[in-house]
Amino acid sequence: MIDLYYWPTPNGWKISIALEELELPYETILIDILNGAQLEPWFLAINPNGKIPAITDREADGGPATICESGAILTYLAEKTGRLLPSGGAQRSAVLSWLYWQVGHFGPTVGQLSHFTSYAPTTELYAIARFSAEADRLLGILEAGLKDREYVAGAFSIADIAIWPWLLSCKFLGKTLDERPNILRWHTGMKARPAVRRGVDLHKEVRRFEAGGQRDTTMPV
Amino acid sequence: MIDLYYWPTPNGWKISIALEELELPYETILIDILNGAQLEPWFLAINPNGKIPAITDREADGGPATICESGAILTYLAEKTGRLLPSGGAQRSAVLSWLYWQVGHFGPTVGQLSHFTSYAPTTELYAIARFSAEADRLLGILEAGLKDREYVAGAFSIADIAIWPWLLSCKFLGKTLDERPNILRWHTGMKARPAVRRGVDLHKEVRRFEAGGQRDTTMPV
Repeated sequence: MIDLYYWPTPNGWKISIALEELELPYETILIDILNGAQLEPWFLAINPNGKIPAITDREADGGPATICESGAILTYLAEKTGRLLPSGGAQRSAVLSWLYWQVGHFGPTVGQLSHFTSYAPTTELYAIARFSAEADRLLGILEAGLKDREYVAGAFSIADIAIWPWLLSCKFLGKTLDERPNILRWHTGMKARPAVRRGVDLHKEVRRFEAGGQRDTTMPV
Repeated sequence: MIDLYYWPTPNGWKISIALEELELPYETILIDILNGAQLEPWFLAINPNGKIPAITDREADGGPATICESGAILTYLAEKTGRLLPSGGAQRSAVLSWLYWQVGHFGPTVGQLSHFTSYAPTTELYAIARFSAEADRLLGILEAGLKDREYVAGAFSIADIAIWPWLLSCKFLGKTLDERPNILRWHTGMKARPAVRRGVDLHKEVRRFEAGGQRDTTMPV
């Protein structure tokens, strides 16, 4: 059994989707980041960096293992199951290159665009323009990368799982796919995967929780 | 032989240091990012994202392989040699968690701090304060992570190689280690490693190149 420390954000969705795709049993522990739960001492003992997602694999080789950082968790889950990340060769490097591209470029850029657009207390036009233009550039890289490929690295992989939730953020921030037919095709294919849908729909549990229907912090999925 | 597409930046140093630590033979191809060489069509065919570093391993299993994104390159080189990244267990996850922490948090934060401090055409005080405070927070995470540990994941690994060049950037941007004794000890230890020194000193080749001493774009190291 895997404990998933979770809140419905793009980085959280990566792991709920991966767990569903890999058919691994898990329990969800909601970390209410809107109320600072990620900064409580008990959670900082799990992830000192104070971020979701994190996992604890209670049946890891060598005893229970806690893993932080969504890219490291995706790699762990793929290697645990031998799926969604080839064990060697050019395909492995292609998956990891796209995964690090998401973690190092696409995620931080869209995250900052979201912050400066929606949360910053002042309107800093240069910052908004900077991160918006970089998001557009990165969408162009993704569009070109998906030319003649069903998924970013050829076969479906943890790289698609990492990138797709951040595309949802781009769309939420007003970026359209009108002139990005390859991304639109890929997006449509991702949405159609039942496990992806189950992973991203996990947030419905949170809405139920917020509505007062359940007060347990651990809920079966 | 490995071709290293390189310019002396924190991300470039990661790979020159790793190649030196792993004692892998390589040739350096300078990509003059100050003059836009990373955006020339021949280089975009190597890395469509237009960033250094990249490598081509001419003797990879299955034929020559090009790999982009510094985190993916570090992983490739470690797995090629079976060094600096344990093959499984908690130690592997610890290395990868720190590596993704650098790629997803420390690098982007310090990179944006550098941009808004030194390169942005306007002075956006909120952005500077935001990225400076986040850099301080992340240095605190690193300081705590190095308590009672010689290296971030225990044994020396590609995570140390990824993080250390960005600590140099922090120092350049005015962050001190006065109240960070664990980082200072680690920094001193990193600097004392001959391979780290050789990797970061590769930039002396660039200075010679800039001074007109050599006009070849490929130089032996």
